[in-house]
Amino acid sequence: MEKLRVGILGATGAVGQQFIALLSDHPWFEVTALAASDRSAGKPYREAAQWVLTTPMPEKIATMSVQDCQPNLACDFVFSALDATVAGDIEWDFASHGFPVISNTRNYRFDPLVPLLVPEVNPEHIQLIPAQRRQYGFGNGFIATNPNCAVTGLVLGLLPIWRRFGIQRLVVTTLQAVSGAGYPGVSSLDILGNVLPQIIGEVEKIQREPQKIFGKFKEDQIQLADLQVSAQCNRVPVRNGHLISVALELATTAKREEIAAIYAEFRSPLAEWNLPSAPLKPVQFSSDLFAPQPLRHLGESNSMIVTVGQLQSCPVLSYRLVILVHNTIRGAAGGAILNAEWLRVNGFLPARS
Amino acid sequence: MEKLRVGILGATGAVGQQFIALLSDHPWFEVTALAASDRSAGKPYREAAQWVLTTPMPEKIATMSVQDCQPNLACDFVFSALDATVAGDIEWDFASHGFPVISNTRNYRFDPLVPLLVPEVNPEHIQLIPAQRRQYGFGNGFIATNPNCAVTGLVLGLLPIWRRFGIQRLVVTTLQAVSGAGYPGVSSLDILGNVLPQIIGEVEKIQREPQKIFGKFKEDQIQLADLQVSAQCNRVPVRNGHLISVALELATTAKREEIAAIYAEFRSPLAEWNLPSAPLKPVQFSSDLFAPQPLRHLGESNSMIVTVGQLQSCPVLSYRLVILVHNTIRGAAGGAILNAEWLRVNGFLPARS
Amino acid sequence: MEKLRVGILGATGAVGQQFIALLSDHPWFEVTALAASDRSAGKPYREAAQWVLTTPMPEKIATMSVQDCQPNLACDFVFSALDATVAGDIEWDFASHGFPVISNTRNYRFDPLVPLLVPEVNPEHIQLIPAQRRQYGFGNGFIATNPNCAVTGLVLGLLPIWRRFGIQRLVVTTLQAVSGAGYPGVSSLDILGNVLPQIIGEVEKIQREPQKIFGKFKEDQIQLADLQVSAQCNRVPVRNGHLISVALELATTAKREEIAAIYAEFRSPLAEWNLPSAPLKPVQFSSDLFAPQPLRHLGESNSMIVTVGQLQSCPVLSYRLVILVHNTIRGAAGGAILNAEWLRVNGFLPARS
Amino acid sequence: MEKLRVGILGATGAVGQQFIALLSDHPWFEVTALAASDRSAGKPYREAAQWVLTTPMPEKIATMSVQDCQPNLACDFVFSALDATVAGDIEWDFASHGFPVISNTRNYRFDPLVPLLVPEVNPEHIQLIPAQRRQYGFGNGFIATNPNCAVTGLVLGLLPIWRRFGIQRLVVTTLQAVSGAGYPGVSSLDILGNVLPQIIGEVEKIQREPQKIFGKFKEDQIQLADLQVSAQCNRVPVRNGHLISVALELATTAKREEIAAIYAEFRSPLAEWNLPSAPLKPVQFSSDLFAPQPLRHLGESNSMIVTVGQLQSCPVLSYRLVILVHNTIRGAAGGAILNAEWLRVNGFLPARS
Repeated sequence: MEKLRVGILGATGAVGQQFIALLSDHPWFEVTALAASDRSAGKPYREAAQWVLTTPMPEKIATMSVQDCQPNLACDFVFSALDATVAGDIEWDFASHGFPVISNTRNYRFDPLVPLLVPEVNPEHIQLIPAQRRQYGFGNGFIATNPNCAVTGLVLGLLPIWRRFGIQRLVVTTLQAVSGAGYPGVSSLDILGNVLPQIIGEVEKIQREPQKIFGKFKEDQIQLADLQVSAQCNRVPVRNGHLISVALELATTAKREEIAAIYAEFRSPLAEWNLPSAPLKPVQFSSDLFAPQPLRHLGESNSMIVTVGQLQSCPVLSYRLVILVHNTIRGAAGGAILNAEWLRVNGFLPARS
Repeated sequence: MEKLRVGILGATGAVGQQFIALLSDHPWFEVTALAASDRSAGKPYREAAQWVLTTPMPEKIATMSVQDCQPNLACDFVFSALDATVAGDIEWDFASHGFPVISNTRNYRFDPLVPLLVPEVNPEHIQLIPAQRRQYGFGNGFIATNPNCAVTGLVLGLLPIWRRFGIQRLVVTTLQAVSGAGYPGVSSLDILGNVLPQIIGEVEKIQREPQKIFGKFKEDQIQLADLQVSAQCNRVPVRNGHLISVALELATTAKREEIAAIYAEFRSPLAEWNLPSAPLKPVQFSSDLFAPQPLRHLGESNSMIVTVGQLQSCPVLSYRLVILVHNTIRGAAGGAILNAEWLRVNGFLPARS
Repeated sequence: MEKLRVGILGATGAVGQQFIALLSDHPWFEVTALAASDRSAGKPYREAAQWVLTTPMPEKIATMSVQDCQPNLACDFVFSALDATVAGDIEWDFASHGFPVISNTRNYRFDPLVPLLVPEVNPEHIQLIPAQRRQYGFGNGFIATNPNCAVTGLVLGLLPIWRRFGIQRLVVTTLQAVSGAGYPGVSSLDILGNVLPQIIGEVEKIQREPQKIFGKFKEDQIQLADLQVSAQCNRVPVRNGHLISVALELATTAKREEIAAIYAEFRSPLAEWNLPSAPLKPVQFSSDLFAPQPLRHLGESNSMIVTVGQLQSCPVLSYRLVILVHNTIRGAAGGAILNAEWLRVNGFLPARS
Repeated sequence: MEKLRVGILGATGAVGQQFIALLSDHPWFEVTALAASDRSAGKPYREAAQWVLTTPMPEKIATMSVQDCQPNLACDFVFSALDATVAGDIEWDFASHGFPVISNTRNYRFDPLVPLLVPEVNPEHIQLIPAQRRQYGFGNGFIATNPNCAVTGLVLGLLPIWRRFGIQRLVVTTLQAVSGAGYPGVSSLDILGNVLPQIIGEVEKIQREPQKIFGKFKEDQIQLADLQVSAQCNRVPVRNGHLISVALELATTAKREEIAAIYAEFRSPLAEWNLPSAPLKPVQFSSDLFAPQPLRHLGESNSMIVTVGQLQSCPVLSYRLVILVHNTIRGAAGGAILNAEWLRVNGFLPARS
């Protein structure tokens, strides 16, 4: 199988860099085009980007020239790591010119024809794409999005419970890492030895995105799930890894052992497809007294897993638990790459001539 | 008014040190006796204690000799900062010998005859003391306790709402500072750039103590309040200041403006007494976008206030808000000192001959 | 004595805010004008400034209107906290219009007619001002500067040794706090759990400024001191307080006890003047095993002291020691305010009509 | 080549754990015995050790039973990660019973017959072993040690300069990570947002060990190198990685470009031996403006490299530079493992029957 050629929109930013790092030896995809704002266009990537990852910049990428975000890139599809202020027009432009756009940005997450995709959770939502192409005149192009980083952790971490017992209400409190704010992002003067009890725009995303993700695809539409979510979001002095403290109300009763058993049995619904970025056990359940911790439980399966711990009964709703997700990998670039893999095996990513 | 002579049990530990610092120029109380474990007894305090506060050790204290925890200290009453493993017997022993014991330890918090006291919240609970003295044969002695540090913040921060609208259910998530674990306490290897999603024993305290504190005193008993509390507790890399993220269900409906107004109007029920450690506005309400923060909102009124912010409506219960409390001052030593002040003006702390 | 009216240039930045906080109840000076860039001019200070200090913004300042940096402010003299990129022209402009300019910026530190002033170290350098006024046609105006924050700590911490034994060579390594970079300054992604071994431009300042400060005033000139300084500078995840590790070569031999004694005896050469910001003992010497620490030894005398510890003999030069200075107070705004106090008692700050 | 059987003394501590992690898939060595204090003996390792690494405990090790530190372990040689308070007797006991002891502890570093070994620097020092065996009556047993973690970084980082130009004097300031203090080690209350300017015992090691390491082997002795070292040591809130700021005086003059060239050319003197843990380029030289950083430059070649940066001329001695070393890997367990590899290819580690 020949590798598909990939373009990255917003390649110089923190998420763009994460795409580059994760794709540096991907078996199906190869980065052939880097695009960013006018300011960067024309420069070699090494000069255009201020590399913030702790792994080194791939040599091959360093010498590539950064291009404008024009829909003439030499690639089969694009990942978008664009800033939301410019992503709307550019992503639409690329889709209109026939490019599949796998986006990490929030702009089209609530477009009724755009899948908000976590392949283990709602793989069938990609069936929105034919209607999207028709109605928007995109030809072979389309837009598919992944959720907010904390929401990815939330829906994936709750998936085993959701499927088996149903969930009606969620009270969520997040403890989010600074890498979620990009670079330079959070000032050290604001966060060293401190917590910020507010992340602008985050509450709305967490309260709203799960209903679409858990929704049912039916007749070219997603019927939103009946689920109430309450959220309050905190920034903590941690580099990577969002912790999500959850109180949940089940739709049907379940004992603690039943829930633990459901988690122990859980395997990826995508297992048979052998997608390169899909862990066989995407949800790790731990009964370790001090799990999950950002420092200790982020790395397994290339950080594409979420870890669930601290399961206890809740005197107000049904249960409490804590979910950990790697926000820039599973919750951003890695999630988008998995989306592309799922879209490819379903035939949505043909090679462009 | 002559100063009362104060003994400190457990004077060498982190909470004991905080008592010493806060009492160093107290207008009503003067430290005249320091007691600690056998290991320290006989040494000058300077040698016995490894001082962990960032303010210097008071000179007068440094040269005092540490004594055994025997009920023959030259003082009118004692504060107890003892470790829970030894506090039970020692506190009882002192009370039996006629000493009022104002304790920060958990051992007697649920004794039905011992007040679990936050003077702004349940000042009338001190009326348990006569029955306690009678039944336990304590003479002039007695035991009074203050709650867990996070619980103090919780009940005080919710007091204005509790009084006016009533509260039926609470879903609580805490982000707690390392000073709450004492010294050496949390290893830097466990918490630098990390979060620990578990604090042993803390969930139980937070789920159980508020019912007693909000309970009604009636016929020498406390009738527990009808309130369900769910808690999950996290340790974060912050030095001082516990953040408490709350989702609450009101007993009666209220608009956001009404709640904000209740907070704005709130004044200490103890104001007329002019207690040295009692702030006139013990609950500060902030509509600042990024309040409350441990780094910025702990200091006012000698850290005896709590700060409430992030008030928003909750899609699951009624409202969400975030409370900040200085855990080692308002939540520990300072809270106990305020208890002593309240007990004194009510005649429970006579001078001993 | 009537208060002098003070203008602050660059009032909205981090150093400008520190000036405001320190002057909020100064007995000699009163802030009457705030000036900043065009972007801020015309707005109330509350809106123009993003307040980064952990103490609250003074109410009186919050409502003042920010003005342009034009030399028509209603004040008797100005403090300059301007960015170095614009400070050169603006400071000259104010001095030309007769305003004394007490500057924290680096632009004129090496102008041979501008004092680089630490009043305890080189109080006589203010005698440069008459020649400066004459040669530059400043009328009553002039420019006086204070050194780089680490240099202030270095020269003040070494002053007792310098005066008594002389110093020929210094090998300096700094561990500098993030507040030295202003706001937003250092990104949390760069410094959380990390050290940056480079602070742009800092080595040159530390290697060059001490010679002028320790220089002799003679015939309207400063004769540079004969002192070699080597520096390497690190940024560490500390909020406030620069640590300066020094190896020094004495001009004459001295025993460790002699050096300790010199420090113990040291009193401020300015003591008789009763300047409001001048500590009687500006250099605190500690033989505590773990002193000095940013967390524990910054606060005394309103953070206008430096603390010296870790004195040990050096197998390569003569001695090693470690100095701690509060970089935004003694090393910046507080240092400039002390300069103004010293200039006032010497008659250089007349009231303007 | 069959794997040698390895015992680990002090297997439950932080360094012992690092040995276990690094040996988990070593091609030449296999852990067959774990020994620790009486308190742990008899328990399965999973229960005896509080695992502090962020990588998981190897399954095979978890179920092994911890034994007493008696010289009857079923292994061909032992690594010692014992606490210095007990290491002296135990290591001697094992050597006396014919076990090669590759120790990370300080006790025998200055025994004139014990090599203090960094194989790239002083590979010939292993020739001390025959005399050691003879004089101490160890049979096939012996003791070999590796230096203090910061010293390993220092001598390896300076090796290219030492060999070509010679070094006469060093002024060293360290910024050391908390993992160097073991677990629980440094209290979070001491180090969060702080620096400790003292690490007990460290100055002496850094000032004294390099002379032996750089010394010449001659007639069963090490002639100490003529090198003066001055050190001051700081603990910083970093998890792993010691930074070592150095000012050095060359024995012969050299231009900056010559030094940079020497570093660029430098290859491991051990390259031909293909030791599993020996990097081909053990010293990485970087001219990156912000290198080396603990966060970004520790990982290459399994953290067995050191990184050198910030090379600049020094106004007092000859040059300044900054070295970074992974303190628990290259500076401790990894260094000892490399010592064992070097000893094996030189025939000092026969299989025991």
